[in-house]
Amino acid sequence: MAARLYLDWNATAPLRAEARAAMAAAMDVVGNPSSVHAEGRAAKALMERARGQVLEALGAGGADLVLTSGATEAAALALAGRGMVCAPVEHEAVAAWCAADLAVDAGGRVSVPEPGRATLQLANSETGVIQELPAGLAVSDLTQGFGKIAFAFNWLGVEGGLVSAHKAGGPRGIGALVLRQGVDLAPQLRGGGQESGRRAGTENLIGIAGFGAAAEAAARDLAGGVWEEVAEIRNILESALMAGAEGIISVGSDVARLPNTLNLIAPGWKGETQVMAMDLAGFAVSAGSACSSGKVRVSKVLRAMGFDEERAAQAVRVSIGPGVTREDVLRFAESWTKAYGRARMRLA
Amino acid sequence: MAARLYLDWNATAPLRAEARAAMAAAMDVVGNPSSVHAEGRAAKALMERARGQVLEALGAGGADLVLTSGATEAAALALAGRGMVCAPVEHEAVAAWCAADLAVDAGGRVSVPEPGRATLQLANSETGVIQELPAGLAVSDLTQGFGKIAFAFNWLGVEGGLVSAHKAGGPRGIGALVLRQGVDLAPQLRGGGQESGRRAGTENLIGIAGFGAAAEAAARDLAGGVWEEVAEIRNILESALMAGAEGIISVGSDVARLPNTLNLIAPGWKGETQVMAMDLAGFAVSAGSACSSGKVRVSKVLRAMGFDEERAAQAVRVSIGPGVTREDVLRFAESWTKAYGRARMRLA
Repeated sequence: MAARLYLDWNATAPLRAEARAAMAAAMDVVGNPSSVHAEGRAAKALMERARGQVLEALGAGGADLVLTSGATEAAALALAGRGMVCAPVEHEAVAAWCAADLAVDAGGRVSVPEPGRATLQLANSETGVIQELPAGLAVSDLTQGFGKIAFAFNWLGVEGGLVSAHKAGGPRGIGALVLRQGVDLAPQLRGGGQESGRRAGTENLIGIAGFGAAAEAAARDLAGGVWEEVAEIRNILESALMAGAEGIISVGSDVARLPNTLNLIAPGWKGETQVMAMDLAGFAVSAGSACSSGKVRVSKVLRAMGFDEERAAQAVRVSIGPGVTREDVLRFAESWTKAYGRARMRLA
Repeated sequence: MAARLYLDWNATAPLRAEARAAMAAAMDVVGNPSSVHAEGRAAKALMERARGQVLEALGAGGADLVLTSGATEAAALALAGRGMVCAPVEHEAVAAWCAADLAVDAGGRVSVPEPGRATLQLANSETGVIQELPAGLAVSDLTQGFGKIAFAFNWLGVEGGLVSAHKAGGPRGIGALVLRQGVDLAPQLRGGGQESGRRAGTENLIGIAGFGAAAEAAARDLAGGVWEEVAEIRNILESALMAGAEGIISVGSDVARLPNTLNLIAPGWKGETQVMAMDLAGFAVSAGSACSSGKVRVSKVLRAMGFDEERAAQAVRVSIGPGVTREDVLRFAESWTKAYGRARMRLA
């Protein structure tokens, strides 16, 4: 029996070896970063080193980095109570705090008339569609772009950005809000005054160490062209799947998109059925963003791009990463194509 | 040169071997707990196992456990916007959300006329003073008691309790709000609907696994009498320190207190100076709660107990744990007593 193949990197990426090593080392550091004694200072130094690694990887030297329990907390911190507008393609953690009034075109691109009071993602988790961020944008969810495509926060012209460690090979449950220096912000978690008063609570030191190491490694890989190879493998997968049947739609294939993401609509075959069939065959893929798995069956993202309810419920997302090979994706393509053939026979 | 001695367990406890092993194992689990495929289900199963371990250790079978990024987040979730009253002895993460109107006696005990709209800690981080929680109490900060003294959440008569993993040998940056079943609660982090809709965000799986393992080990140690041995060592330390000079006050020594905590007022010697002197001598101790180290120089807790500003600024907290030996604490006592003697000579 073939080993299982994980093709759901946009839900969460495998933990990088560099992150694992940094976390193991941090387990030996006993101090509370707020303590003034040598143990506390050592913990603080480890945390500040990781903060520097993340800022460097983000191209955000000189900016502020508020370490949070993930991009969801960063979104709440950046957006709650600010009356922002956004598009219906945003992740739910962002959409919870904004009015989804912005227009989306058929390619998934969003128009932003007033960037100063808007939030817009850098890349979509379901389709991989990359946005051109308008100058003066208030907040951008950088989560899916971070580590996969080259950008520098300091050149985006954005006031604040959300990132998550686990989408870039760090641990789950740690993220950050990167802020242009001097931006004022009311804390939501209060108490100990950590993170320059912007976020209270004893810091997740082991997770932060993993975040820093993962960010550094991700930036190195990106600069080294690793994701260009990933894009080639994704394109091979795309061609193989599209050849399998008539009428398959590759969403976002005619616009700029993430190098690792493929979103296919297979007419007549429900996304959730695809996920289950592929799971049984040994492949982990997704029918939408992980957090809404098993809840929302119709993709809001695809609906916003103009697909009808039926089509928007027939999408599968395959998202890969470095180390996934040509053989891997062709094995998936073969299995998926056979299963789709069987599904169409049942429908016929 | 003697090895450094860590005597600041109430700020953060060393990571338990059981937590370390569970975290290392969790690093191999790639899935997002919200994903429906086998990898996601494995991640979810690991998380639910840890949730069960924490509930069991808390004596909270059948209650709900909302996993958070720590007790600070749990406090915000339990208390924000509820107009609760509390006493000035609460940790800042709790005090941020309540009016500190409740009376404190000279022993540090708090009177709670209306438990249904009050929050009261189980044990104080600075003094170790243990409260008798009134029946019907809305929220209790259980952080410092958890793992050190025996209690069962289900028997406390409290609606909600805050806990933190790292005070019980788990990792920093993970905690929980334990809630009597059926208590309604508005989420503060919104988006993916995790934690039964009470707290959104991809879960800190590695940290959660460590929390579960630490909680289980802590409960086992507690039942095995480990903390009675810790109390004996603490008492040896207390006697040795009190014998070193006239006028030293051991705060909370005449009321029920945590087995590991010693809070001493050394007349004429500022707490922060004590911490620095002991740090140079190789010992990690604290002048108050870690989060306010270097910020608040006068303990609000001691002020509430009736000590004047001068005395409240002259306290040092020594907090120990399993594995700290008689020899260790006597080494500290000798060093502290000598340093205090020098300090008094400078004052004279």
